[in-house]
Amino acid sequence: MAKANQPVVGIIMGSDSDLKIMQAAADILKDFEVPYELTIVSAHRTPLRMVDYASSASARGLKLIIAGAGGAAHLPGMIASLTILPVIGVPIKSSNSIDGWDSVLSILQMPNGVPVATVALNAAKNAGILAAEILGISDKNVLEKLTAFKKQMKEEVEEKAKAIEEKGGS
Amino acid sequence: MAKANQPVVGIIMGSDSDLKIMQAAADILKDFEVPYELTIVSAHRTPLRMVDYASSASARGLKLIIAGAGGAAHLPGMIASLTILPVIGVPIKSSNSIDGWDSVLSILQMPNGVPVATVALNAAKNAGILAAEILGISDKNVLEKLTAFKKQMKEEVEEKAKAIEEKGGS
Amino acid sequence: MAKANQPVVGIIMGSDSDLKIMQAAADILKDFEVPYELTIVSAHRTPLRMVDYASSASARGLKLIIAGAGGAAHLPGMIASLTILPVIGVPIKSSNSIDGWDSVLSILQMPNGVPVATVALNAAKNAGILAAEILGISDKNVLEKLTAFKKQMKEEVEEKAKAIEEKGGS
Amino acid sequence: MAKANQPVVGIIMGSDSDLKIMQAAADILKDFEVPYELTIVSAHRTPLRMVDYASSASARGLKLIIAGAGGAAHLPGMIASLTILPVIGVPIKSSNSIDGWDSVLSILQMPNGVPVATVALNAAKNAGILAAEILGISDKNVLEKLTAFKKQMKEEVEEKAKAIEEKGGS
Amino acid sequence: MAKANQPVVGIIMGSDSDLKIMQAAADILKDFEVPYELTIVSAHRTPLRMVDYASSASARGLKLIIAGAGGAAHLPGMIASLTILPVIGVPIKSSNSIDGWDSVLSILQMPNGVPVATVALNAAKNAGILAAEILGISDKNVLEKLTAFKKQMKEEVEEKAKAIEEKGGS
Amino acid sequence: MAKANQPVVGIIMGSDSDLKIMQAAADILKDFEVPYELTIVSAHRTPLRMVDYASSASARGLKLIIAGAGGAAHLPGMIASLTILPVIGVPIKSSNSIDGWDSVLSILQMPNGVPVATVALNAAKNAGILAAEILGISDKNVLEKLTAFKKQMKEEVEEKAKAIEEKGGS
Amino acid sequence: MAKANQPVVGIIMGSDSDLKIMQAAADILKDFEVPYELTIVSAHRTPLRMVDYASSASARGLKLIIAGAGGAAHLPGMIASLTILPVIGVPIKSSNSIDGWDSVLSILQMPNGVPVATVALNAAKNAGILAAEILGISDKNVLEKLTAFKKQMKEEVEEKAKAIEEKGGS
Amino acid sequence: MAKANQPVVGIIMGSDSDLKIMQAAADILKDFEVPYELTIVSAHRTPLRMVDYASSASARGLKLIIAGAGGAAHLPGMIASLTILPVIGVPIKSSNSIDGWDSVLSILQMPNGVPVATVALNAAKNAGILAAEILGISDKNVLEKLTAFKKQMKEEVEEKAKAIEEKGGS
Repeated sequence: MAKANQPVVGIIMGSDSDLKIMQAAADILKDFEVPYELTIVSAHRTPLRMVDYASSASARGLKLIIAGAGGAAHLPGMIASLTILPVIGVPIKSSNSIDGWDSVLSILQMPNGVPVATVALNAAKNAGILAAEILGISDKNVLEKLTAFKKQMKEEVEEKAKAIEEKGGS
Repeated sequence: MAKANQPVVGIIMGSDSDLKIMQAAADILKDFEVPYELTIVSAHRTPLRMVDYASSASARGLKLIIAGAGGAAHLPGMIASLTILPVIGVPIKSSNSIDGWDSVLSILQMPNGVPVATVALNAAKNAGILAAEILGISDKNVLEKLTAFKKQMKEEVEEKAKAIEEKGGS
Repeated sequence: MAKANQPVVGIIMGSDSDLKIMQAAADILKDFEVPYELTIVSAHRTPLRMVDYASSASARGLKLIIAGAGGAAHLPGMIASLTILPVIGVPIKSSNSIDGWDSVLSILQMPNGVPVATVALNAAKNAGILAAEILGISDKNVLEKLTAFKKQMKEEVEEKAKAIEEKGGS
Repeated sequence: MAKANQPVVGIIMGSDSDLKIMQAAADILKDFEVPYELTIVSAHRTPLRMVDYASSASARGLKLIIAGAGGAAHLPGMIASLTILPVIGVPIKSSNSIDGWDSVLSILQMPNGVPVATVALNAAKNAGILAAEILGISDKNVLEKLTAFKKQMKEEVEEKAKAIEEKGGS
Repeated sequence: MAKANQPVVGIIMGSDSDLKIMQAAADILKDFEVPYELTIVSAHRTPLRMVDYASSASARGLKLIIAGAGGAAHLPGMIASLTILPVIGVPIKSSNSIDGWDSVLSILQMPNGVPVATVALNAAKNAGILAAEILGISDKNVLEKLTAFKKQMKEEVEEKAKAIEEKGGS
Repeated sequence: MAKANQPVVGIIMGSDSDLKIMQAAADILKDFEVPYELTIVSAHRTPLRMVDYASSASARGLKLIIAGAGGAAHLPGMIASLTILPVIGVPIKSSNSIDGWDSVLSILQMPNGVPVATVALNAAKNAGILAAEILGISDKNVLEKLTAFKKQMKEEVEEKAKAIEEKGGS
Repeated sequence: MAKANQPVVGIIMGSDSDLKIMQAAADILKDFEVPYELTIVSAHRTPLRMVDYASSASARGLKLIIAGAGGAAHLPGMIASLTILPVIGVPIKSSNSIDGWDSVLSILQMPNGVPVATVALNAAKNAGILAAEILGISDKNVLEKLTAFKKQMKEEVEEKAKAIEEKGGS
Repeated sequence: MAKANQPVVGIIMGSDSDLKIMQAAADILKDFEVPYELTIVSAHRTPLRMVDYASSASARGLKLIIAGAGGAAHLPGMIASLTILPVIGVPIKSSNSIDGWDSVLSILQMPNGVPVATVALNAAKNAGILAAEILGISDKNVLEKLTAFKKQMKEEVEEKAKAIEEKGGS
């Protein structure tokens, strides 16, 4: 098992311009006290670095990988082909993307044998939450944090609903 | 931990017509010796049954849920809103779907807070493999089965490659 | 029958950020003197609140429900599955939507048995008008207001046409 | 109020080739004992007939109109512009349609002031059910039939679920 | 035959907000000295005005009609159904349009028997040029103007090409 | 003016496989007694033949050209760039087309200065009718035929409507 | 330079089910007497084999690579990231593809620095012709074959045109 | 063989407004010391200039052509039909384009016999890199420059990765 503070989630992205989206995955994992590492791994510009990263991920103690990319977004799928760990893919609507469709389809539509757990366009926060749900299967601390998070989310909606109800009506 | 043969994966679908697609998730889990249960839960025709199913899933020993649906496919997302377990969504190109786009988008594009781990259109087999990857984080038997599966998959490609190389060339 | 000022239309939305769109439904109903209530009901963050809202709607005197949501927009369809009242769905082009396509398809493409009366993207005003048309079947006051509204709409176009004709021509 | 057997719903379609889809609206209304009339009104080939049909609909005792069309599907929207009655639009994936997208968009995307209650592609059955929900607001008989229909729908799913559960499992 | 200055082209649009696009059709016809009239005719808000406009167009001396509209853009097709004159349709990317797709498809995809000569999204200028090409079949003056226009267009490209060639190169 | 039987419409297509669609344009022109010529002109495989065809079209007595093509359908637009005659484009859903979208967009979306009068996907019959409408501006015989055609079209719908009304109803 | 019969083009595909499409690339290269090799390299099931294949391609004497794949089609782009040779990508409409859109976008939309020369959906023959055009820059034999091929293509169109012209006309 | 500084790549575009995108192709070729020429050739406004340009390209010493265009983007495909040289197509998201889809499809979807090597939307830089890869097959200087470029690209990613790793982590 991983030591305290040893990363259990690897968060990677194809380009430093993706960081403004992918930071949300890191932030929510920090909230859940899940240790993570964060770096850039470009499938197309550093393919061998990608092979090394994915091949060594399990041995280094990672339990799952969150990978974000845009356009012809090959990073999540290629990582998934190189490790036995579950991979969560975040399609990013980057500047070179056609309204996000390329990002979504090239991450989602993986062939049989090599799934990528795809979340919504730009939904790095949800990638972090999904990671916590997965880790929560065997980690009570994470499960507790997650349960509290969901409760708070519900309460925030209820408060906003109350505020609108008081102002609104006919 | 779950008793032998107690289901750890719930496989559900919106309609019995989805079974011909979703069976592949059950088949691969059987290969991996992961106990599962299989049933129909319609978000739209049996909403309270859906609430019951999802709300009791964790307490009943399930560790994750695979949900398949087509058209305005609300089942995976609604299940995810009702349980803390990870939910894998399988968009199905059902007869009432517009080429599968509705199925994909209404499963994938979940709001922040409630992710669904979406796989490719009709990719129930990949949903089963993803489930095994997730369970494999804390279950050595599943990890072993999965490792063997991935190795065999690679070898089958290599054999086919060899066959084509012998026939082909100029 | 409903008492004076008792809401007959429930206007709900998935998030407070949807209010800037959905307000138009409330405004037009106010013009038509149709009593309404307005609140937030999130299918994904408050699913049980949603069940309660929809299940009690008819008994509370509501005659129809207008529900707006964006992205994987499950609220209108789930409300429709939980009540016998007609449900009007407003697809919202929210910030997490792929150009509105996900919102439209996940509201429109409901399976047989559970229709949602879908209006155009962001067309909350039309949702209100449709509600008035439906209530107008059995409510003369509403029908009268609606008839006047349609007449005025026609006259406004005719005035603008006249203005352009006077400026334009060859 | 309408006399017994006087049609309260008008079901119209742009072409006789649409009948194989639109028949389902008639069938379900028959089940609900809602009197209807059924005919062809082509927006493009018989525009004046369309004007007559829509203009006289209310006076003839109709309470709502279901209109189905495919391709550049103008019938539902034009009918809505010519009557104060609610109009339900059924986009049809006709042979001249581009995968149904033209049918959906030209019915759904109506401008402010003239809504069409749009249902899913080819979903004539749902158009009939939506009509019953609307009429059910002020007609107890219809509401009763509808309630029974929804109950039966739920039970059919539960039976199928039970059958699958007995066959399935690991 | 039409008197001098009697309009031979009718330019109509569904809303005054379309004028900023449709003005380009008027401008180019002015350049070609083709008399035109310009007004608003809303298919949905003034359907009977639309019927009158189209039904009387030929008798009033118009030879063709240019109609622009956005969203569920029924105006061009409905005009075409009500007159024997050729109708040129301009799909407009209006504020209520889904990226212009609805506008394009609901104008272009007309059924057999009732064509609309559709031009590119927002291409009102091209609608005017197409009108001139059509009138040019039997009107030498227009043909001459058009020929000069095409020559000038070619020369402008050649001048710009020359300017770039002088600045550019390796 | 053209001699009797001298073609006034040129019908061209990019490939002989397009003939099964484009024949409908020829058939309807035959019905209208409009002389036409029919041949294959491939923009990509015979570009100079295309230049010759378009450049000489006006001098040879043609008054307009109908061009059909599929996939990256450049024929209609290139013909339009090489002649002053109006060009009607027929997007064809050929075997190498992506559901017809490429055919539609590469014909419709012409730049300012060079319009193509685009009709619906595969709508060669409508291309012929549009040609007749255009010629009908200055040719009374064609106008008469066209008027009769439209009348017959209307009557056929009315007959079918009557047949359905007699069978249908509740 | 390569020895006689040493492959200069590598034709690879993601799965043996792609062979029915990719064979056309091999066939046309055979016609042009360009030596090629043909094999299966799966980006997702045999990622290290892919790395080896691409990394050694240049040293083995290959001058360019044609790669075909469907769905989340990562093979062409990953090969391009691993070699300095030009890579031609063939998007394949495989059974797991959403009408080919995923195949096209995940091959075409490569980020800056790593282009893939993408051809049309399923256009393996064109990939072979493009390969010949590229090799023809520095290989007179290939250029000659290609010139003859283009001439024959033109003549075939002209013959078919002649045949249709003789049958056709009014 | 070409003299020193004689252009070997022709960079052309449909309009001077495309220059802001296409300049990137020129810039990268300048970096690689590949002589190029740059001009405007409009398929639609200067078709005969296009025929001249393409027909004389090979004789003038060009080895390949990069052509950029938007909307109904016929330039790359028409150039390809008029020369034996390889043609690289750059789809441009111009102001008259529908989100770039028309540009992409009308360049990519060429029929058998006439390929265009298509790169990503607006990816003029990649067009220049692809040109260098193609020329690099028979030109050692270009190959060297390209190899250095790819190495630098990799190192830049690695530096950025290092910077993020130092800042990031849990």
